[in-house]
Amino acid sequence: MANSDRIERMRRTMENNSLDVLVLRLPENVLLLSGYWPMIAASVLLFPAEGPSICITPECYKSEMESSIWEMDIITYSLGTCDADSPTASLLKILGDIEKTKRWGKLGYEDDFDTVASSWNSAESIVPTASALSLLRAAFPACEIVGVTDMLLRERRIKTPYEVDRLRRTSEISCFGLKAFQDAVAVGMTGVELAAEVERATMIHGTGYGKAVRVRAYAQVTVGTEETSLGYRPNVISTTRKLRDGEVALLELGVVADGYWADRTRVSIAGTPQDEQLKIFEIVCRAQEAAIAQLRPGVSAADVDKAARSVISDAGYGFNFPHVTGHGLGFGYHESSPILGPHSTDRMEEGMLTSVEPGIYLSTVGGFRMEDDVLVTAEAPEVLGSYKKVLQ
Amino acid sequence: MANSDRIERMRRTMENNSLDVLVLRLPENVLLLSGYWPMIAASVLLFPAEGPSICITPECYKSEMESSIWEMDIITYSLGTCDADSPTASLLKILGDIEKTKRWGKLGYEDDFDTVASSWNSAESIVPTASALSLLRAAFPACEIVGVTDMLLRERRIKTPYEVDRLRRTSEISCFGLKAFQDAVAVGMTGVELAAEVERATMIHGTGYGKAVRVRAYAQVTVGTEETSLGYRPNVISTTRKLRDGEVALLELGVVADGYWADRTRVSIAGTPQDEQLKIFEIVCRAQEAAIAQLRPGVSAADVDKAARSVISDAGYGFNFPHVTGHGLGFGYHESSPILGPHSTDRMEEGMLTSVEPGIYLSTVGGFRMEDDVLVTAEAPEVLGSYKKVLQ
Repeated sequence: MANSDRIERMRRTMENNSLDVLVLRLPENVLLLSGYWPMIAASVLLFPAEGPSICITPECYKSEMESSIWEMDIITYSLGTCDADSPTASLLKILGDIEKTKRWGKLGYEDDFDTVASSWNSAESIVPTASALSLLRAAFPACEIVGVTDMLLRERRIKTPYEVDRLRRTSEISCFGLKAFQDAVAVGMTGVELAAEVERATMIHGTGYGKAVRVRAYAQVTVGTEETSLGYRPNVISTTRKLRDGEVALLELGVVADGYWADRTRVSIAGTPQDEQLKIFEIVCRAQEAAIAQLRPGVSAADVDKAARSVISDAGYGFNFPHVTGHGLGFGYHESSPILGPHSTDRMEEGMLTSVEPGIYLSTVGGFRMEDDVLVTAEAPEVLGSYKKVLQ
Repeated sequence: MANSDRIERMRRTMENNSLDVLVLRLPENVLLLSGYWPMIAASVLLFPAEGPSICITPECYKSEMESSIWEMDIITYSLGTCDADSPTASLLKILGDIEKTKRWGKLGYEDDFDTVASSWNSAESIVPTASALSLLRAAFPACEIVGVTDMLLRERRIKTPYEVDRLRRTSEISCFGLKAFQDAVAVGMTGVELAAEVERATMIHGTGYGKAVRVRAYAQVTVGTEETSLGYRPNVISTTRKLRDGEVALLELGVVADGYWADRTRVSIAGTPQDEQLKIFEIVCRAQEAAIAQLRPGVSAADVDKAARSVISDAGYGFNFPHVTGHGLGFGYHESSPILGPHSTDRMEEGMLTSVEPGIYLSTVGGFRMEDDVLVTAEAPEVLGSYKKVLQ
């Protein structure tokens, strides 16, 4: 088994929770326990506490699935043709047949994910629904059915070596986007043009890199003082505003490669930087380094945040760093734990992956943030896909 | 009120269902009834059967919201700063305060959307959850709370003039992507390169077109006989396979502009087309025209499908057209009704928007599909964002 650490750990957790089987449908969780990253809402993974897993998938996706899935039983059904049964009817029949051969008592399902990672075709997302629960109740009438959202999110905090390899690859791919951004920033460019170029470059150069098959980038580029000074908000939009001489451009970049995510930020100046911009940039880089230096097993996440925040506060910009220093990620662009923030109760553990992204946002010279994804190891913290930190 | 047709029709539907208020959180449904397209999972729309709507939104998104929202009450709360309450705590307090001033008996919520439309930053999607339902139960303890997913999807089938204006704009924007595709297809290009170029061009030329603010394209490009002959599957992936002389490239394109969607397909030949390719292309175009000619109020969706399918069957390729002729769309890339298929029980109505996308897929010369979005009117059907149909 390629990712046996993950399998063994999940089985221990299931034993602790008296769970006999997990029934998973979200692409991010199917990936976690099967190696297969589904693209549409028609695949179901049964992950039992004992015995082989079972993946149920439309027949037409079998070859796609087989290129990545770990060893397990596979059951297919017809989908998408004019005469096929509905996926619900097909799944009900298959699950019902499985139920008859098993003595499962307690079944876990994804009850409460309220933000979900996109699949490669991110125009539509697959979500956990009331109907999915009804289907489980009909197929497994004798089972106790319990939500395991929190359990899955907790499990996902610690990455296995298998997963780290893939996350490292995504971070390396994200560097194509960072490079495209640095190369393209110039007087007259708009945020939309920069974002589109970053996405194009990441997709073209990333697909095939380290055998990655499905790569997609999501760039938000703000330009100029007014936009970048609010550049810490999750809803920033790339606009048609043109960069002027001496103005900053701020790139927020999410990248996914075969289901594994990276989250990066770089800033760049068009034309001639102002002295205060150089100073702010240096402080932000120093704050990031201070936080990264703290990322060791056993250290509290609040202390990691404090390391970055102190550098910024001591320089007199504490009020201009309104967000947390970082967040977990990996099977999604953001994961809910760990959070590197002043009120966090998390503690760093070996195998955690977190963004480290302090920033300073000023109405005078613009917003500056520096973001990389860092792995906590027993030795030194590892910055995945390390990339230069320069303003131009 | 900009979209008074929509407001009045939804109120009649609510009256028929004895609903006192809808509480909406999915971006696509907040857009439907407020004009505002949220980007993150923190805005809630209360749409009552009587009296003004209320939109609850984080303070930092107020200016974004005000540029598009219709006249209604707005309540804001703090989000995203280190010291802010959780969104759940903030929403519970605000909703609880509203509840005390109303006498609502029956409340509708989005219980069962299992495919959701992305927001502009499609790296993460916002979904209906068990926690969202718990929040409603805590805030509205005296209310009967019922799922209204089907009701909302039914309402969305018929587009109002206000919505058609915006859908037409998105279809026009999608033409930038179709043009970029036709211009870029050439021997040596890969599917990934073509898809990336289509997405880049749509975003750059679409943003600002007709005042559109948030534009994003999702392209799937298959190239060559093997890939395009399976090009009807929803999970097709753009690869690094290079186009050779005489091979077909097939573009499947979803575009969203400020929450309104288009769905297009074009095919193009690199180098010199083969005679059979020209013939197949002509049949597919003729099949599409035959279906479009049937799109009048009162006609059954099965008959529209039959019009396209007969052209293809009569030419001897019936077995090579495995999918339905079309599907509704508008507030999402795909909507569940109408479906133009042989077993559909839908009937066309004025204001329906449907894709019309017959195709022929051959293991000898490749897959060919032609897709446009067509509005059913009392007079002639209107192809939104009409674009040339050529192989080169």
